[in-house]
Amino acid sequence: MEGEALSSLCTPALVVDVDKVKRNAQRMIERCQKLGVQLRPHMKTHKTLECADIMTGGSRRCVVVSTLAEACFYADHAFDDILYAYSLPFDKVERCAALSERLDLFQILLDHPQALEQLKKRPLRDGRQWHVWLKVDCGNGRAGVLHSEPEALRLAQAITQTEGVELTGVYAHCGNTYNCRGVEQIQAVAQETTSLTLQFMEKLKAVGITCKSSIGSTPSCSHPVTDMAQLSEVHPGNYAFYDAQQSMIGSCSLDDVAVRVLTRVIGHSPHRNQLLIDCGWTGLSLDGAGKLPTGYAVIEGHPNLKLLSMTQEHGRVEPISGQLDYSKYPLGTLLTLIPYHSCATAMMHPVYYVHSEGRLVGKWTPTRGW
Amino acid sequence: MEGEALSSLCTPALVVDVDKVKRNAQRMIERCQKLGVQLRPHMKTHKTLECADIMTGGSRRCVVVSTLAEACFYADHAFDDILYAYSLPFDKVERCAALSERLDLFQILLDHPQALEQLKKRPLRDGRQWHVWLKVDCGNGRAGVLHSEPEALRLAQAITQTEGVELTGVYAHCGNTYNCRGVEQIQAVAQETTSLTLQFMEKLKAVGITCKSSIGSTPSCSHPVTDMAQLSEVHPGNYAFYDAQQSMIGSCSLDDVAVRVLTRVIGHSPHRNQLLIDCGWTGLSLDGAGKLPTGYAVIEGHPNLKLLSMTQEHGRVEPISGQLDYSKYPLGTLLTLIPYHSCATAMMHPVYYVHSEGRLVGKWTPTRGW
Repeated sequence: MEGEALSSLCTPALVVDVDKVKRNAQRMIERCQKLGVQLRPHMKTHKTLECADIMTGGSRRCVVVSTLAEACFYADHAFDDILYAYSLPFDKVERCAALSERLDLFQILLDHPQALEQLKKRPLRDGRQWHVWLKVDCGNGRAGVLHSEPEALRLAQAITQTEGVELTGVYAHCGNTYNCRGVEQIQAVAQETTSLTLQFMEKLKAVGITCKSSIGSTPSCSHPVTDMAQLSEVHPGNYAFYDAQQSMIGSCSLDDVAVRVLTRVIGHSPHRNQLLIDCGWTGLSLDGAGKLPTGYAVIEGHPNLKLLSMTQEHGRVEPISGQLDYSKYPLGTLLTLIPYHSCATAMMHPVYYVHSEGRLVGKWTPTRGW
Repeated sequence: MEGEALSSLCTPALVVDVDKVKRNAQRMIERCQKLGVQLRPHMKTHKTLECADIMTGGSRRCVVVSTLAEACFYADHAFDDILYAYSLPFDKVERCAALSERLDLFQILLDHPQALEQLKKRPLRDGRQWHVWLKVDCGNGRAGVLHSEPEALRLAQAITQTEGVELTGVYAHCGNTYNCRGVEQIQAVAQETTSLTLQFMEKLKAVGITCKSSIGSTPSCSHPVTDMAQLSEVHPGNYAFYDAQQSMIGSCSLDDVAVRVLTRVIGHSPHRNQLLIDCGWTGLSLDGAGKLPTGYAVIEGHPNLKLLSMTQEHGRVEPISGQLDYSKYPLGTLLTLIPYHSCATAMMHPVYYVHSEGRLVGKWTPTRGW
């Protein structure tokens, strides 16, 4: 396979431009160095060893994961300093304890006093400490104790006062940057999340608590505000691949997107003015709900085509205006889709085909499950 | 694991009630026997050996698949008489030829003269024939040559006149039953698809061509019309699992649905009147777009709860009316989701946990890819 052209692949296939991944990763590393903040890249988008090596500059240290399956996968491959950034799930306490006892530095996250009770019930062996980040909601509206609630400060104090448990840091995700359009809006959310987090750190300091702080999302870390320099860490992830959504938000240009789904024309439907392609939701996911001007994806080099709908293994493509010229799209024609959301699209593929300048250089195999 | 309760599983987890699968499969077998039509069950929903054995009554013969990866997977495990019901993809002709030369009976499908040209270019070895179904569109509006177009008849004739190629049958998918509500509407579509298919068979007969005929979809085969007895085969698939969508269509009752996603409460958000659960779109898929009265899924036993939105690993749940009583949902509480579309949900899981009356009896591992 190595050295062959992308057109040798059976479709649908997820292809990764390794040069773009390296460029995206290097830019984020340099951006964080310049800012003076530790980059802890998130693995959730790709879940592979190879991309993790690129994002960590080969150190295999200081990563964040979204599932315990990812944590185990990376731990099994000599990664360490892993943060499982997910409100401690009570069914997985024992597995978290095992990783805490096995790695130099396994870190968990919580946002509720009941989670702290779970840790008390399972002290770690050999005098080890649970390394805990407090998840704070600074406007994202998902997990986390609200930064403004007295409960947030009380929980931080309770963590520091618990034997066998260490408050490692305060963690906020600014996923609300995904509603932004343009750098100005992104930076407004980045500034707000940073300010609220730093204010919370001040409150902690006032009661004698010092620990790390971390915020992150690909939009905010692609366009950081100066105040982010006062944080300890940032934790973006999607930037290794980027996608059409990120280009709409303003995190990147469409040219920065490192992944594509290759698909082929498998049907002509002149009575409906449509083409059929061999990429359904199993190859792309339904993320984005078709709301791009070009539907569920951007069809590279064909701005007048729209991916209108998908079933399990079929996609329906139609022109945005006018009649399709079928002679331009004979059966077997290769088309290239830029996914709306690369996290969701990557999840559908058991293997990613990696290329450099259109020549295959290898395969990456992601981990799956929980 | 065997013998343990479902509550021993880490979540999210896809669980399959094997007794319901057997009951659904047996009912379909009996329905087809009564009708006098050959059942060719579709494997696309589950893609496992174990469920295929149940659906074929252990014969490992006469199945239909949606991907060539499925075809190879089943061929590797002693299945035969496999129909790859997907408009011949030109990048996979050689792999189709290999299966045709290896199995007793591997069947493909096409809907365009260019596909026939591909077969001519790759004659099978040892005097073997390509076994070809002609895909006809009888109102579904996806793949297939339109039944009413003269081209359909011409293509059938061209197939029969091509050396090394045999016209095995005419294949129509009545996926338009998915727009129905209730048995009456389902049967109207089933009747129309059947009538159009049988009319097309008459046209073939008039030019001296006889071959098999097949239609299918889970709604139409769950409520067949009498005329379907005149077909050779039917090819439903989803019925082994069913799902909330099928119960809304009227194919089954909610009690017939054999799959669930187990999830746990991992967060309380009283400031938003919401719960967080550990099932995001990686555990359920975004299929259905949240349009059920209860959002993206039915939360079993909690008719007032709605799965409002999902991100990669989180689901937001809120009451349909009133304030959440958090004391009823302590962190760690197990909830059970009935998926909107079991094909899409199963696709997200690398393993299915199989139970009988709530006790685990094993794991099924699906095949993936293309």
